[in-house]
Amino acid sequence: MGSEDTSFIPDLPSGGPLAVYRKRANFDWKRLRLIFEKEQGLRIKYKVWRRLENDPLFAHPSRTLPMDEQKRLCAMQVNRMKHLDLVPKEIESLSFSAKTKYLMYINEALACYSPSLSVKIALGVGLFNNAIRAMGTEKHQKYIEAAWNREVITCLAITELSHGSNTKSIRTTATYDPTTQEFVINTPDFEAAKCWVGNLGKTATVAMTFANLYTADGQNHGLHGFLIPIRDPKTLLSYPGVLVGDIGEKCGLNGIDNGFVVFTNYRIPRDNLLNRTSDVTPEGVYESVFTEPGKVLGAALESFSAGRIGIMQESANTLCSAAVIAVRYSAVRKQFGPERHGEEMAILEYQLHQYRIFPYLAAACVQKIATEELTSTYMEIIARSQADSNGFDVLTQNAAEIHALISSSKPLITWAARDAIQEAREACGGHGYLQAAKLGQMRTDHDPLCTYEGDNNVLGQQASNWLLRQWSAKELETPIGSVKFLERRSELLALNYASLAQKTPIASWQFSLRCYEWLLCHLMAKTTAHIEGQLAAGSSKFEARNNSQVAGARELSLAYAEYYALTRYVDHVSTLTVEAPYASVLRLLFDVYAMWLLEKHMTTFYVGGFAAGRDFSAAVRQLLLDSCLKLKDVAVSVADAISPPDFALNSVIARADGLLYENLQNEFMTNEGAFQRPSWWRDVIIPQAQSKL
Amino acid sequence: MGSEDTSFIPDLPSGGPLAVYRKRANFDWKRLRLIFEKEQGLRIKYKVWRRLENDPLFAHPSRTLPMDEQKRLCAMQVNRMKHLDLVPKEIESLSFSAKTKYLMYINEALACYSPSLSVKIALGVGLFNNAIRAMGTEKHQKYIEAAWNREVITCLAITELSHGSNTKSIRTTATYDPTTQEFVINTPDFEAAKCWVGNLGKTATVAMTFANLYTADGQNHGLHGFLIPIRDPKTLLSYPGVLVGDIGEKCGLNGIDNGFVVFTNYRIPRDNLLNRTSDVTPEGVYESVFTEPGKVLGAALESFSAGRIGIMQESANTLCSAAVIAVRYSAVRKQFGPERHGEEMAILEYQLHQYRIFPYLAAACVQKIATEELTSTYMEIIARSQADSNGFDVLTQNAAEIHALISSSKPLITWAARDAIQEAREACGGHGYLQAAKLGQMRTDHDPLCTYEGDNNVLGQQASNWLLRQWSAKELETPIGSVKFLERRSELLALNYASLAQKTPIASWQFSLRCYEWLLCHLMAKTTAHIEGQLAAGSSKFEARNNSQVAGARELSLAYAEYYALTRYVDHVSTLTVEAPYASVLRLLFDVYAMWLLEKHMTTFYVGGFAAGRDFSAAVRQLLLDSCLKLKDVAVSVADAISPPDFALNSVIARADGLLYENLQNEFMTNEGAFQRPSWWRDVIIPQAQSKL
Repeated sequence: MGSEDTSFIPDLPSGGPLAVYRKRANFDWKRLRLIFEKEQGLRIKYKVWRRLENDPLFAHPSRTLPMDEQKRLCAMQVNRMKHLDLVPKEIESLSFSAKTKYLMYINEALACYSPSLSVKIALGVGLFNNAIRAMGTEKHQKYIEAAWNREVITCLAITELSHGSNTKSIRTTATYDPTTQEFVINTPDFEAAKCWVGNLGKTATVAMTFANLYTADGQNHGLHGFLIPIRDPKTLLSYPGVLVGDIGEKCGLNGIDNGFVVFTNYRIPRDNLLNRTSDVTPEGVYESVFTEPGKVLGAALESFSAGRIGIMQESANTLCSAAVIAVRYSAVRKQFGPERHGEEMAILEYQLHQYRIFPYLAAACVQKIATEELTSTYMEIIARSQADSNGFDVLTQNAAEIHALISSSKPLITWAARDAIQEAREACGGHGYLQAAKLGQMRTDHDPLCTYEGDNNVLGQQASNWLLRQWSAKELETPIGSVKFLERRSELLALNYASLAQKTPIASWQFSLRCYEWLLCHLMAKTTAHIEGQLAAGSSKFEARNNSQVAGARELSLAYAEYYALTRYVDHVSTLTVEAPYASVLRLLFDVYAMWLLEKHMTTFYVGGFAAGRDFSAAVRQLLLDSCLKLKDVAVSVADAISPPDFALNSVIARADGLLYENLQNEFMTNEGAFQRPSWWRDVIIPQAQSKL
Repeated sequence: MGSEDTSFIPDLPSGGPLAVYRKRANFDWKRLRLIFEKEQGLRIKYKVWRRLENDPLFAHPSRTLPMDEQKRLCAMQVNRMKHLDLVPKEIESLSFSAKTKYLMYINEALACYSPSLSVKIALGVGLFNNAIRAMGTEKHQKYIEAAWNREVITCLAITELSHGSNTKSIRTTATYDPTTQEFVINTPDFEAAKCWVGNLGKTATVAMTFANLYTADGQNHGLHGFLIPIRDPKTLLSYPGVLVGDIGEKCGLNGIDNGFVVFTNYRIPRDNLLNRTSDVTPEGVYESVFTEPGKVLGAALESFSAGRIGIMQESANTLCSAAVIAVRYSAVRKQFGPERHGEEMAILEYQLHQYRIFPYLAAACVQKIATEELTSTYMEIIARSQADSNGFDVLTQNAAEIHALISSSKPLITWAARDAIQEAREACGGHGYLQAAKLGQMRTDHDPLCTYEGDNNVLGQQASNWLLRQWSAKELETPIGSVKFLERRSELLALNYASLAQKTPIASWQFSLRCYEWLLCHLMAKTTAHIEGQLAAGSSKFEARNNSQVAGARELSLAYAEYYALTRYVDHVSTLTVEAPYASVLRLLFDVYAMWLLEKHMTTFYVGGFAAGRDFSAAVRQLLLDSCLKLKDVAVSVADAISPPDFALNSVIARADGLLYENLQNEFMTNEGAFQRPSWWRDVIIPQAQSKL
């Protein structure tokens, strides 16, 4: 380390109120930034942000636009993408993984700037194309290029009014008519109307739709993907048989036109069935490569993993932004002080304030690295499956574990970002409630990530189910190695704080990881016993599993994701060759995050017998508070190292110049009509015949 | 019980999907409602809701209006209040307490309908008039009537750009000029600009303003209240010397025009000083009734307690609304089921779902009663202080304890409502994210309550400071009795789960209360020891206190509020003469809330030595889950008993008829322009010279 080129990272303003803290950092924030993020990715992101900033179409509106205007602007921005030339031609020749990673970096940068925009692109291009690739064949490839060129505007119509998480119960039908070689699409009733479909409300011209495939003999062959034309791409008028509309205002993400659609005897060509894994012959005979329709669906749904990884990357960035806003504001904002009439103290100096916001700063840093590592693992598996002649086997072997990792990590990180935004809002007091502070918009735009692309609570159960299977399996199946520690389960279960602390000091990388290994084993054993107890008492498997979520499965799933993130961070960071100040801050961040996480499981550690008396709790708390105190002086520089530029962060209370009050003054003074008498002033004056004043 | 008149409570629709659950309740929800709320209050609220519903000015807009339009509508609604005749003439003859209580009920009903409206009225009439009463004299009484008549539009200008919580550091000046017998008001720089002042942005004609009073000799006599004319009430144009503007868009509450103002050598008459506790003679001599200026301020600020109680009442209602939405939605929404292709189950049937939302349902019910009880206590003290010739002494004796109760309870209940809204949003999945579901708006409108009228974290410290003083005091000063248990402190500290459980079964009212008494004693002892340790190590008092927040003070403050709420609920409910089904559901709600709260402190119980092994934790968890299961069948009826009518709840996913999908269909189909091709359709089509499709 030491020879990296950091010149592509724009400088920060010098001087100003943040300089007090910036001077205390004994490291270069730009070099720290290159530890948190890969150079290639950073270069791409800065390029994206620069290009957006230089195009007036992407200038931030000075206030929330009317919904229809938000949709128009967002749709126009999507179209302008091509013009911005963010994706170089060369990437076409790259491997699938390399290309995907490139696009993911672009997505991250766009999501930082505007989640509506990035989601609209992801739905309309990325996820749609992934679905075509996973489920379609040669004849559907033209749609991929058409989506890129915006020749078609696409969407994914899966969710129905009464079915979201339980996709298996979707009721839209596609009945094959051999006389015309067409599928006839029908929505049985409004409860089966496709709804919440992004891009569908106003603009989509074609919808990748999940429907039950019926052959003429009346047999239901289960869910299949179909490409269903919705609107004429030349006029955006919908086709007869397609009743399509916009669902209306949402809490946020109003740049996206979420829609609903009802199909009535709507005919589409036979070729519009995505037929990679099964097909219907022109004569109407159903043919499947798989024997089980469930697996067909499984393969199709697997292509959404990339979407969940995208959510994790975006949430890691949201965590960063929330933490940056809280840290910068708190470093400038002063309130109260040791002497009644003396100088006031920056609120960052208060221990309680540090305790409230530093864990999120640390979480942001750890999750940046951990998410990047998980992404790499995912990409490697995809790459190997493509390179290998037994590609499908590679995929299958790893699929279950990667699915468990993503299914537990997506809830962890989306919830962490959710909480970080809220804590930041409160930590910034009233000024944090200003729309221009950005936190309110972040909150509403981030919120749906907790329930879409897999509801967090439902996803979490998929991870715990896999973990419990590993616990009970005769042979461990962990090609990625995330539960390799289960090989030492009896030794781990015998562990307790006193014995661990003797060999492994709390201030070591290994301490928290060992605690987590005990915790995971304990939770697996406890939950398994609970399920078995329920079964023995006569419960069905379904009941037993449901009634063991609170007892342990829920905590298990989260703890697994936490453990994995910490592990990946340690693996990555502890092998870096960096100078002492960098090593030291990386360690501080780990300690803050790890201790804070351990505190969340403290009850389980005590009740489960890992700890007794006050020692463990006191040691964890002490290290947490000590680390917060040490972090305090460098927190502003750490925030600099994870902050997007002002243009993308777009928070009036957290500009890099630290000129909090000057920026607020400017905001107050220049907001539209600030000093104007309202046009409706006559409406609010009550004429007074007689005044005593 | 049994003979109450419940006929004034409107019936619910019969039949529909909620009937399944409603039939299972063995009690009359209307009679339960009269247990949760006083009949007088309920009658007033229904009257308010009925009148609002019958006036088209109060019809809910079909979508979020542009900010300026929100402000106009809200201002017009405030003016329409008089016309609605909500406050009968007779209440003028009632006592201050009775009158205040009446107005509080109206405020609750209005806040349920629209927080912007209720806050605007509270700021413009209630709080302003309280301030005049507390700080003004005879000559200022005319302003009270003028505010009622909307002859003046008022606001409270306390906060400055760089000072919120630390009001003592406010820097606006009011310098007396004996030559003209005027005060000259100045804002030294923009950091001292009054800002965030509700009603000031567009409409206020007069501001009750806090400024430092300087006499001509240059002496600063500290903060005083002044009535400062801002705009001409006939034209709404601001006066020269007053630079007043609107701060712009906020995350929510945009019906209120929050403003900022800068004064430059702005002259106001001497009579505009609120001179109840101190005055300046025409010649310019400062005269104070108190010797300490701090006490002057204290008395003035005390008048804001009523505002905090108002926030608690509103938050209790918000808790109710969030819980109602989550329960009704979950009772109708079905997803997954025991058999792959069989009937699906209402999500309310899942244990994890019950565990997520029932504690908030229970919290809502307990807090409804507890808040009403606390309000009564507060009102009694005010009444006694007014009746008693030593009124001021009565007030002073009780003030510290009531302040501690409010300072700890306001954070508890505002945070509970915040979390309830978020959990409800996630529990309702995507549909909960629809603006018409109401949860998004509730979240943004409720959010500022966590940081205004006293930031929760700052307020909490005032409560813990009082508690720690009681712990160390030679003589206990608890006229309200909230810490009377400290008399048994040595006995309590010796308590542990095993010994407690022997005498007091967990399924008794007393069990949780005893646990809390141990917890509070433990936290007071621990925090006190921590502070003493810090002082002994050389810390200043200021440092020692700050550095003991995480160690115990923060938890102490919240635990105190929880204990007090549970106590008041038990005191109230256990003395009611009600039939078995009512007694049983009141008990269930207590058990769910109390066990859930105990779980939050579980670590402290274990680390502090109250519990060891798994028994305590397991018993609490078991009772919680068992109670949730029992509550499940009656949850819909409990929700009915705390729900505002559809008009005020205004959630498309939680109407009383339970017709979730029909109501959603209606919402989707009728939202403005749902089926319309966007006017900007030409802007988003990219002409394709050659299409391969």
